[in-house]
Amino acid sequence: MIMSRDNTAETTIENVSSYMHELGVQARFASTALAKIDTGIKNHALNAIADAILANREQLLAANEQDLNAGQANGLAAPLLDRLELTEQRIAAMADGARQIAALPDPVGEINQLIKRPSGLQIGRMRVPLGVIGIIYESRPNVTLDAAALCLKSGNATILRGGSEAIHSNRAIATCIQKGLAEAGLPAQAVQLVGTTDREAVSVLLGMHATVDVIIPRGGKGLIERISRDARVPVIKHLDGICHVYIDEFADLDKAVNVAVNAKTYRYGICGAMETLLVSAEVASKVLPRLADRFREEKVELRGCDQTKKILPQIAEATEEDWATEYLAPILSIKVVDTLDAAMTHISIYGSQHTDCIVTENMSAARAFMQQVDSSSVMVNTPTCFADGYEYGLGAEIGISTDKLHVRGPVGLEGLTTQKYIVISEGVTR
Amino acid sequence: MIMSRDNTAETTIENVSSYMHELGVQARFASTALAKIDTGIKNHALNAIADAILANREQLLAANEQDLNAGQANGLAAPLLDRLELTEQRIAAMADGARQIAALPDPVGEINQLIKRPSGLQIGRMRVPLGVIGIIYESRPNVTLDAAALCLKSGNATILRGGSEAIHSNRAIATCIQKGLAEAGLPAQAVQLVGTTDREAVSVLLGMHATVDVIIPRGGKGLIERISRDARVPVIKHLDGICHVYIDEFADLDKAVNVAVNAKTYRYGICGAMETLLVSAEVASKVLPRLADRFREEKVELRGCDQTKKILPQIAEATEEDWATEYLAPILSIKVVDTLDAAMTHISIYGSQHTDCIVTENMSAARAFMQQVDSSSVMVNTPTCFADGYEYGLGAEIGISTDKLHVRGPVGLEGLTTQKYIVISEGVTR
Repeated sequence: MIMSRDNTAETTIENVSSYMHELGVQARFASTALAKIDTGIKNHALNAIADAILANREQLLAANEQDLNAGQANGLAAPLLDRLELTEQRIAAMADGARQIAALPDPVGEINQLIKRPSGLQIGRMRVPLGVIGIIYESRPNVTLDAAALCLKSGNATILRGGSEAIHSNRAIATCIQKGLAEAGLPAQAVQLVGTTDREAVSVLLGMHATVDVIIPRGGKGLIERISRDARVPVIKHLDGICHVYIDEFADLDKAVNVAVNAKTYRYGICGAMETLLVSAEVASKVLPRLADRFREEKVELRGCDQTKKILPQIAEATEEDWATEYLAPILSIKVVDTLDAAMTHISIYGSQHTDCIVTENMSAARAFMQQVDSSSVMVNTPTCFADGYEYGLGAEIGISTDKLHVRGPVGLEGLTTQKYIVISEGVTR
Repeated sequence: MIMSRDNTAETTIENVSSYMHELGVQARFASTALAKIDTGIKNHALNAIADAILANREQLLAANEQDLNAGQANGLAAPLLDRLELTEQRIAAMADGARQIAALPDPVGEINQLIKRPSGLQIGRMRVPLGVIGIIYESRPNVTLDAAALCLKSGNATILRGGSEAIHSNRAIATCIQKGLAEAGLPAQAVQLVGTTDREAVSVLLGMHATVDVIIPRGGKGLIERISRDARVPVIKHLDGICHVYIDEFADLDKAVNVAVNAKTYRYGICGAMETLLVSAEVASKVLPRLADRFREEKVELRGCDQTKKILPQIAEATEEDWATEYLAPILSIKVVDTLDAAMTHISIYGSQHTDCIVTENMSAARAFMQQVDSSSVMVNTPTCFADGYEYGLGAEIGISTDKLHVRGPVGLEGLTTQKYIVISEGVTR
């Protein structure tokens, strides 16, 4: 059996590759133990982790201050420092999150149905953990707890590799996680924080297909593209959200205005924020001036196509680049289209298959849009900012998958599991 | 719009890379059309393809003879020549297969449930095609039709790259597929056979992540490992089947003998064939002599561990290598184990996560085995040779996935689809 190593403390690691492979083997052993553990024990661990987080508030804030000071000294940009910061409130939210995950139903072990085949076989599918999940993320320390809690509840062992800027905060959080695991009698290797900030650790992790079942990167597009390119382990990706709202000729224009404004302004920085508004030529002259008023109040900069500019001459012209840009900012591009098909074609060319919405009262248009737009969420009369695991009733999410295989859209506990066939008979033969 | 190219004829392709990318773009366009087509039209095409296959029997046999002659001239081994051969019977079976797929329920468009959230959102998941599927296979020409039919029924466009030994047969089959597509008014690019035997075509295909959603390799382990290593496009893999039957101390020994013999002898060459038999020490002296008699009749060579050889001294000794070997032949390794845990540990070390069975009358042992053995199919009192899409009621299968993500075990129509979220409301805002 392999000796455990304390990954919460400062250690000097000489051989990063063998260190990482050791973590992988330990995680694999832990995953075998986790797969057969009762829900009650997992929930006990999650609640004990929440307790430890609250009880160790001071230590967490002190460790975080070390990271913040180092960040300031290294000239980290203000938004990054904000993401890095832990406050009393954020610590409380982390603990709450763990308790909420404890309260969710456990997907593991679920068998939907057992069908009976003419041969006498009873066949069903049982939901089981994926096994070992690697999480690679940037400077938000709360991801350490969120990801560990979701993976633990779904019966997976986790290897966490956070950004080096957050290393002290992450170690302090990992110490709390270890306390909770120990209290519930779960193996320490169920959640392992990579104990080195050496970048080689990431490269090694990406190739550990013998021990790691899937890697979930959380962070900017650059990180995710790099990981997807280099990984030999399957990756659940969350790329950009160039989300569209299309106001159809049969739209209720009051709804259209509300949906479009909310989709843009609810929060500019989320991946579900609308980036391009498409408007049917039939209603453009009626709805665009109303929208322009509302967006002016909200201080959203508008950029329009030629036809839009005929109706709203005061706004800037949208370029080809605008259609392909995820602003994540109070900027909106607007295009007038002649038909539903033209709207869908625009989405298929410039969209990112994340979330797109049609505003319409026409059943056929709604059905065509839902069927034909190839995005992880297709919406009718609903702002795209609703694309979120909590809103969808998943209870929590580890990200929003823009992949098509395995899981699409917000990823909750079910997305961290797989199904295996179970086959039972009384000794039938072929 | 892109011009169509006749891929069923002999062509000289100068720039393989741009040729392949053109196929990809054509497939992507065709997939958009296929995604919205009614089931009836797809079924019409499948039945018309079956008709064309039967009507063009002579042409198929003539084309196949060209391949067989070339194969013999190139010294192709006898089993490969057998796989390559089309007979009247095999042609009839291909046509039957297409008709059976036409008769299966269409998974596309299915919405399981629409839940209502407190916010007023109605949320559900709609089953949709993956998009474009690349199939890379070896010398069996019937795969051309099987794969095309399954992908077509599930609404996907297909790029088929068969082995060069079967190129004339594959072209003749592709001609029949084109006739069927045309008769149903479907785009010719819904099914495209790669028109060159240049190996570069495979390398290019493996990198076409912008237009191809998934690649499914069908063939030997070498082919599949090579493709998995090199692909930038997601791959649904079917690696080896080192399948186990474990005879528990609480087994009904009559069932145990029948299950073990059937699991080995039903067909030696299938991936679900048992390769290692594990026997509880409690029952080994009772059941092993009975098994040895039966396997002697069936001319299966036995190789045993030390404890097995104490009971069956006449058999050869199993080496470490035996436990890790997929024989696909009338050879069986046998190991006596002390406990259920020891059996499961052996399976976790040497198994290939394909299909494993426990023979037991004990409910707790059966449940522990089903829960803890991490294989795509776990069976109770059922021969492993039942691991098959037809037996599971999928109607047809494109392979057996040994992956954990997306789809595990036999892959039918559902495995060739994905789910997207649909979200409907009356203009609610956050």
